[in-house]
Amino acid sequence: MLRAYYAGVDLGGTKTAVAIGDGHSTTLVANRTIETQGERGPDDVLARIAATIDTLRRDAGVSIEAICMGVPGLCDIEQGRVLFCPNLTGYWRGIEAAAILNAATGAPVRLLNDARAAAFGEFRFGDRPGSDLIMVTVGTGIGGGVVLDGRLRLGRFGAAGEIGHQTIVPNGVPCGCGNHGCVESVASGPALTAEGVRLLRIGLAPHLHELVSGDAGAVTPTRMAQAADAGDREIEAAITRAARWLGVGIANAVTLLGVERVVLTGGMSALGERLLAPIRTEIQHRVRMFPPSDVTVARSTIGEGAGLLGAIAWAATTEVKEKTTWTTTTQT
Amino acid sequence: MLRAYYAGVDLGGTKTAVAIGDGHSTTLVANRTIETQGERGPDDVLARIAATIDTLRRDAGVSIEAICMGVPGLCDIEQGRVLFCPNLTGYWRGIEAAAILNAATGAPVRLLNDARAAAFGEFRFGDRPGSDLIMVTVGTGIGGGVVLDGRLRLGRFGAAGEIGHQTIVPNGVPCGCGNHGCVESVASGPALTAEGVRLLRIGLAPHLHELVSGDAGAVTPTRMAQAADAGDREIEAAITRAARWLGVGIANAVTLLGVERVVLTGGMSALGERLLAPIRTEIQHRVRMFPPSDVTVARSTIGEGAGLLGAIAWAATTEVKEKTTWTTTTQT
Repeated sequence: MLRAYYAGVDLGGTKTAVAIGDGHSTTLVANRTIETQGERGPDDVLARIAATIDTLRRDAGVSIEAICMGVPGLCDIEQGRVLFCPNLTGYWRGIEAAAILNAATGAPVRLLNDARAAAFGEFRFGDRPGSDLIMVTVGTGIGGGVVLDGRLRLGRFGAAGEIGHQTIVPNGVPCGCGNHGCVESVASGPALTAEGVRLLRIGLAPHLHELVSGDAGAVTPTRMAQAADAGDREIEAAITRAARWLGVGIANAVTLLGVERVVLTGGMSALGERLLAPIRTEIQHRVRMFPPSDVTVARSTIGEGAGLLGAIAWAATTEVKEKTTWTTTTQT
Repeated sequence: MLRAYYAGVDLGGTKTAVAIGDGHSTTLVANRTIETQGERGPDDVLARIAATIDTLRRDAGVSIEAICMGVPGLCDIEQGRVLFCPNLTGYWRGIEAAAILNAATGAPVRLLNDARAAAFGEFRFGDRPGSDLIMVTVGTGIGGGVVLDGRLRLGRFGAAGEIGHQTIVPNGVPCGCGNHGCVESVASGPALTAEGVRLLRIGLAPHLHELVSGDAGAVTPTRMAQAADAGDREIEAAITRAARWLGVGIANAVTLLGVERVVLTGGMSALGERLLAPIRTEIQHRVRMFPPSDVTVARSTIGEGAGLLGAIAWAATTEVKEKTTWTTTTQT
C-alpha cells in the first residue's frame, strides 16, 4: 500500500520553493528552490515549476495525488486563474495557472494566495496546531489569512483575510491595490523604507547614514532596525509608528473576528519585538469586546516554511470544495 | 406528537419583545412587547421577562424547549452572563442572566448579542435564506454580526462581528467602548445628531431649525433626513459623511471576510438610500480584492423582527456548542 504524497509550490518574487510531502507532517521527501525569473513570463515560469515537480517525484520515487501553488497575489481559486501579482515580474493577469500546471504534470492543481497558504501551514504545523488564528505576512506587501472555527476562511475568489487592505487612514496615500490609506500603504516595507530615506536625507539618521554609506537606495527595514539598535532615535520612532499602524489593522481584525491568536511571518517580521511590542500596545488600547490581555501576538515558529507546508497540506485537504481544484483527469 | 417550540427575547433599551415560535418559520404562536424599565434593575427586568414567557406559553398552550435572549451589549455566551450594556438603564455588569431566566422558567437559556441574533435571523428568514452575510445594526450604537460558510461566527464570548468597533480614525474622538476613532464614534446616531446640532447652532440648517422649533434637544437622524429632503444642503452633506464613514467600516469587513452581501437594520437604516448610496460608493472605491460591483448593500426585508426571529431560531439550533446553553436541567 503506497502512502499518498502531494506537491506544494511557494511562488515568490525572486525564488520559488517546490516540495513534496505527505500533507500531514512537516517531513519533506524532496524539495528544491529555483529562481523565479518572472521576466521570462508566466508560461516559462510555470513550465520550470512543472519540470521541478517532475524531477522531484522521480528522484523521490513517489507519485503525487495533487499540487497546490501559493501565489503572491490575487487568484480566482475556483477557476484556477491568477488575476494579479503586483510583486512578480511579468504579466500575471488572467493566467490559467492551474490548467497549465495540470496539463504539464497530469496532477490535479489548486491555487491559493500565499498568505492564506501560510495561515493554513501555521494552523496545521505551527506551535498550536488546530487553533484558530490570524496570520499576517509583512514584507513588501501586507498579506493575511484567517482560520475560523477550524477552517481556513476563503470567501469569494479565496480573497478573505486581506488584513493589509483595510482602510485605516480614510484620506491616506494611494495603495498598490487602488484604494487609499490601506494598512499596507502606511506599514509595509516600502512605507517604512520611505520614511527611513526621508530621515536620512534630513540628517536625522546618522547611524543609518553610516550603515548605508549615505546611499538612500540601500535603506531597508533591516538596516533601519540596525540603525535603531545603534542609537538612531528617529529611526526607532519610525519603526514604532509603522508597527502601530499595523497594530490598528490587526486590532480591527481581532475585534471583527473574535480571534485571540495573531501570528506574523514575512521579511519584516524579523524586526521582532520592535514590530510586535507596538502591535500589542494597539491591541491593548483598541480591543474592547473581550479581554485584550488574552490576545497573543508572536512570530511564526515555522517561519518562511509556513507557506510551502501550507500549500502541501492544502493540496491534501478534503475540506475544500471540489470546484477549487482544477483538473482534466478524473479524481478518485 | 408535539411540535417543539422555543422562546426568543429581544431585550431593548426602551421595549423588550418576547415571542414563541418553532424556530424554523417566521410564524409566532404568541408574542408580547413589554416596557423594559431598566431603571428597576436587572433582577426586576428579568423577572418580568420570565413572567411574560410563562404567560405566553400558557396562553398558547405549548411548552418550550429552550430560550434565547438577544442582549444589546456584551455577554459571555459560555457563562450566560451579561457583561456590559451601554444603552440599557441599570447596572448590567456581570449579571447571571441565563441562570436567572433558567431558574424562573425551568428552560435552558442561551444569550446572544442582539446584532448577532439579527444576523442569524436574517440568515434564516431574510430574502436570501442560507446565504452568507454581514449584518450591520445602525442606531444609537453600531453593531454587527457575520455569517460565514453558513455559520454565525461567534468567537470569544460570542463577540465576533463588532463592525462598529473597528478603528478607522486612529487619532479620533473617544468611543463608548473605550477606544478612540471607532466607526461607531463617527457614524452612529449620536455622532450624526451632534453634527446636526452644530449645523443648527451655526445657522446652516434652516429647515431643521423649523422642524425642531429651534430646539437642539429635538434633533434626531430622522429629523435631519426630513430637513435634507426639505432642502438643507449642509444637513444632507452631514448624513453623507456619516454614511461614508460607515461605508469605510463595511468595506473593511467585506475585504477581510470575503463576503459580498451586506444587510442593514436598526433605527438609522430608515434613512434608506441616503445611508445606502454612500456606503456603496465607499465599497466601490475601497474593495479591491474581488469585484466590488458584486457586493450588495440593502436594508433587511424583515427589519426590526430579525433580532427576535433570530433569537428564537438560535434557541432551536443544534449547531452551537452545548456549553453556550445555561441550564440546571438535564437536556435531552
